[in-house]
Amino acid sequence: MCGTDIASAPVNKNSSLPSSNGLPSVNATRTSTPTLHPHSFINLEQGDPTVFESYWKKMGDKCTVVIKGSDLLSYMTDLSNVCWFMLPELRDAIERLHRVVGNAVTDGKYIVVGTGSTQLFQAALFALSSPDNAQPLSVVAAAPYYSEYPEEVDYLRSGLYKWAGDAHVFDKDGGAYIEVVTSPNNPDGSLREPVVKGGKGKLIHDLAYYWPHYTPINHMADYNIMNFTLSKCTGHAGSRIGWAIVKDKEVAKKMTRFIQMSSIGVSRESQRRAAKIMEVICESYENVMHMRSDKFFDHSKAVMTERWDKLKKVVEQSEVFSLENYPKSCCYFTGEITETQPAFAWLKSKNGIDDCESCLRGLKILSRGGIRFGADPKYARLSMLSREDQFNEFLRRLSNVRGISNGH
Amino acid sequence: MCGTDIASAPVNKNSSLPSSNGLPSVNATRTSTPTLHPHSFINLEQGDPTVFESYWKKMGDKCTVVIKGSDLLSYMTDLSNVCWFMLPELRDAIERLHRVVGNAVTDGKYIVVGTGSTQLFQAALFALSSPDNAQPLSVVAAAPYYSEYPEEVDYLRSGLYKWAGDAHVFDKDGGAYIEVVTSPNNPDGSLREPVVKGGKGKLIHDLAYYWPHYTPINHMADYNIMNFTLSKCTGHAGSRIGWAIVKDKEVAKKMTRFIQMSSIGVSRESQRRAAKIMEVICESYENVMHMRSDKFFDHSKAVMTERWDKLKKVVEQSEVFSLENYPKSCCYFTGEITETQPAFAWLKSKNGIDDCESCLRGLKILSRGGIRFGADPKYARLSMLSREDQFNEFLRRLSNVRGISNGH
Repeated sequence: MCGTDIASAPVNKNSSLPSSNGLPSVNATRTSTPTLHPHSFINLEQGDPTVFESYWKKMGDKCTVVIKGSDLLSYMTDLSNVCWFMLPELRDAIERLHRVVGNAVTDGKYIVVGTGSTQLFQAALFALSSPDNAQPLSVVAAAPYYSEYPEEVDYLRSGLYKWAGDAHVFDKDGGAYIEVVTSPNNPDGSLREPVVKGGKGKLIHDLAYYWPHYTPINHMADYNIMNFTLSKCTGHAGSRIGWAIVKDKEVAKKMTRFIQMSSIGVSRESQRRAAKIMEVICESYENVMHMRSDKFFDHSKAVMTERWDKLKKVVEQSEVFSLENYPKSCCYFTGEITETQPAFAWLKSKNGIDDCESCLRGLKILSRGGIRFGADPKYARLSMLSREDQFNEFLRRLSNVRGISNGH
Repeated sequence: MCGTDIASAPVNKNSSLPSSNGLPSVNATRTSTPTLHPHSFINLEQGDPTVFESYWKKMGDKCTVVIKGSDLLSYMTDLSNVCWFMLPELRDAIERLHRVVGNAVTDGKYIVVGTGSTQLFQAALFALSSPDNAQPLSVVAAAPYYSEYPEEVDYLRSGLYKWAGDAHVFDKDGGAYIEVVTSPNNPDGSLREPVVKGGKGKLIHDLAYYWPHYTPINHMADYNIMNFTLSKCTGHAGSRIGWAIVKDKEVAKKMTRFIQMSSIGVSRESQRRAAKIMEVICESYENVMHMRSDKFFDHSKAVMTERWDKLKKVVEQSEVFSLENYPKSCCYFTGEITETQPAFAWLKSKNGIDDCESCLRGLKILSRGGIRFGADPKYARLSMLSREDQFNEFLRRLSNVRGISNGH
């Protein structure tokens, strides 16, 4: 069955998004009212974090924000801060959240808010490069790397920096470079350190998934540039809020400058809402009266654990697919020995099936194939953050393939 | 007095914004609580539209938006639309607003939302250029042009496009080009058409100021790419909402693609609020029961008229400064013969004063000098959109210079 039935995918003719572009072009009109037909495609190609919606619904009005017509008019917010367009309440909430979780050092550092961490990644490239360089800086990441990095680096054909591929095979004597270290990694969930050794490279740490629901918090991250995003932390992807924790003031200034040139700052409405959401999460952990199941990271960790347990059981019985293994370690936040349970499954096809994405497409499951991540097409990435009905249908279809596979 | 006392400007040591950068670095800590001391600087360098705050305060809860914790989580909004991250309610509100005002044709066109019109301008450059071109496209605008265009075009040293300066002196035989037509123009308020004649250039129309409070609405704009921004229309600069009305579907797709690569879409909170504000404005014009002074464009036009009348009187009596003259024409929206009353004053120094910006700085008034706009330093641009107390103090200081000038 694998590798067939691709032509029937109901590609959205209006969308500007070919399916290779990292955001969906199939099986949806308005996503606010999803329908799940047994014969329709399940889209797990993106990491759209809709799994968290039910939790926020349960929270009712706790995180509701009310914005009047006369609020937040100015371009300027806090001119005493390097990042002059950041709401002080958001900066305070970000610092408080990292103190509560214990995942990153903010003391003595600068925080820069961005329109998602996508904008901050590009701001960091700009800040670390210079128009005085004779050659564009090489930007590398160890394969499998986040599929969007190559195009985010190269789409404007910048003379400041250029994508140079897999860090494992990068020749550090070839000149100055930036290595992006994504940990836990997207797509495969591995915990990472820089790969290029002995070079004079600069580092950007993408810590989008360094939160207790995805991985044990076993150290306080303390790097030069650390990018985070609300999308993966709380699930509020539509808000487009990311933040960078930056050691060097001049780098923070240049990142701020990039965001000024790119969009003259970041939505104040989103900033206010992000601050409110973070405050409510922190309050629940600082106040011992709160029920554990009401606390965001406890709830979401339990959801991820349940999903991973279910998926592992299905895959264990499969003759077609296999999964990565993750080490266990002590999470200082939960006080428990736990395993990484990534936001994506990095599925590998076996038994002579060379194209995992096509195989899944035959099951009407949309994934993103390994080639996009600089990896083997035997791999495919699937979101673990879909809505409940989608996830269960995904498991059902994956279970069926065993029968089909046995039958052939 | 002019040209002195510059060194005393209290430059903000923390900010990443040198005063030459288009956003303020002086005379403020948190702008939400402005203080105006007779000896402090008045910052009219930016076009921060805080003049409209008092109107929105008067409107009370009419435009209040309430956003729950579980709202707007997904990256995806409306996959049936080319601009898949745009809220349908915002698209509807934009179309309704242009119908009510009659300033631009939206029928049969595509709308792309951006993080302010700054992002949309760059999206348009990306959409109109191609990596297949041997040379980067030249981007030109007739001087005096918006001071940020050169850096917005060049800051990433793109191989797709490059700033090529004043359209008046551009050699169209030098290759493909894009001309930006800003009308009414920033900084000088002039009404504009393309300047490069007979070339095979592509056009981007920046219509940020084509609204009834700034200029008579005397035609329905109907160009290939028309950029608008909430900042200048309603004063909600902090929301970072802009929109482009685009004739060609492939161009709209490429612009959408740019915004995906740049920031994976646009804040949903800001979109929802922008839609609400536009709806309230439209409702006031569609419902005959509303008082005229309660209607946004009537109110804001009256404010601009009053400010311009006051400024003209002060400048008429000045031996140091002069102003542009603007033609009158019939505004189809108000039904009145009116004059352009721009968001900026384009002040010219006379009687041997060669540097208008320095002269104003001597009066502790911060402006942006002509050189930044590709023009003579005898000119300076000053915001007409400041808060009331700032505007009145600006007039007071400008009046004083006459006495001083006479005394010397």
